[in-house]
Amino acid sequence: MRAEHINPFLTSAVDVFSTMLDCKLTRGTPAINAAFQPAHEVSGIIGLSGKASGTVVVSVDREVAMCVTEKMLGARPDSLNADVMDAIGEITNMIAGRAKTGLAQLEMNLALPTVITGKNHVIRFGSLAQTISIPYSCEWGELTVEVGLIEEEANGAAANKPMLAGASG
Amino acid sequence: MRAEHINPFLTSAVDVFSTMLDCKLTRGTPAINAAFQPAHEVSGIIGLSGKASGTVVVSVDREVAMCVTEKMLGARPDSLNADVMDAIGEITNMIAGRAKTGLAQLEMNLALPTVITGKNHVIRFGSLAQTISIPYSCEWGELTVEVGLIEEEANGAAANKPMLAGASG
Repeated sequence: MRAEHINPFLTSAVDVFSTMLDCKLTRGTPAINAAFQPAHEVSGIIGLSGKASGTVVVSVDREVAMCVTEKMLGARPDSLNADVMDAIGEITNMIAGRAKTGLAQLEMNLALPTVITGKNHVIRFGSLAQTISIPYSCEWGELTVEVGLIEEEANGAAANKPMLAGASG
Repeated sequence: MRAEHINPFLTSAVDVFSTMLDCKLTRGTPAINAAFQPAHEVSGIIGLSGKASGTVVVSVDREVAMCVTEKMLGARPDSLNADVMDAIGEITNMIAGRAKTGLAQLEMNLALPTVITGKNHVIRFGSLAQTISIPYSCEWGELTVEVGLIEEEANGAAANKPMLAGASG
């Protein structure tokens, strides 16, 4: 996965949480091709396809999911109900959509978001995809943005550029 | 969701299980826009985008997942390991891919499959999507194919065609 394809994902979650939810995210250390492990309790998933194919997963703590929904709807939900799932789907859509605009050269379209709930559910990308997992924390709890992409040029010279170069800013 | 968009999904799982796995699926009664409920223990998810945007979920019993993997790899896996998740991702990709070729007019591309495991995980499509849930059974157990689509023409006259017309064959 090329650095210039990773960078838009490093900033998109921070931007969406800041502008839409007035919530400051602090980014942890991204991991490349990490082994799969249990996600947080609520995960939004959205597919991207075009000159590259990919998937974005936004996985959040229960409390983050509740607070995001409260911020978007103006009232705290009673439980992990349909409103919460729709809110996390919408945030996932926004994070992927914002990253997509930074990747115009890949001409990708967004599919529909789906949202998974369940304690200790595990999400695995296909073996062919290169993935990056980006942890964040905020006043509400923790979340992770994971991106898997298969790039058409993956076998070409361009793919040999170092990953994450310039991605620490 | 128009009947001609549903039909390819009604047959694609049966075709893939028959040709790839030598396993006969028996179809139950499809449900439109069903309330969300716990999926089976292993679910493959893949996004579609183009003139329509959608998501396909193939959710299978643990035993179905084990048997599919055994059939594809020639040896029974020890547990719900990475091989099983890759096998279900591949089957999901094939089912969505076969349906896509029956929907050439929508010019959809497939995103990457991701696979979820977890007891009682729940998968929800966005509120805007029209969904169909198709249950199947086979000698190995039960599975469900769920499809959510948002069609560009959804507000036009064509969208008023009855759903599932001709879909019972």
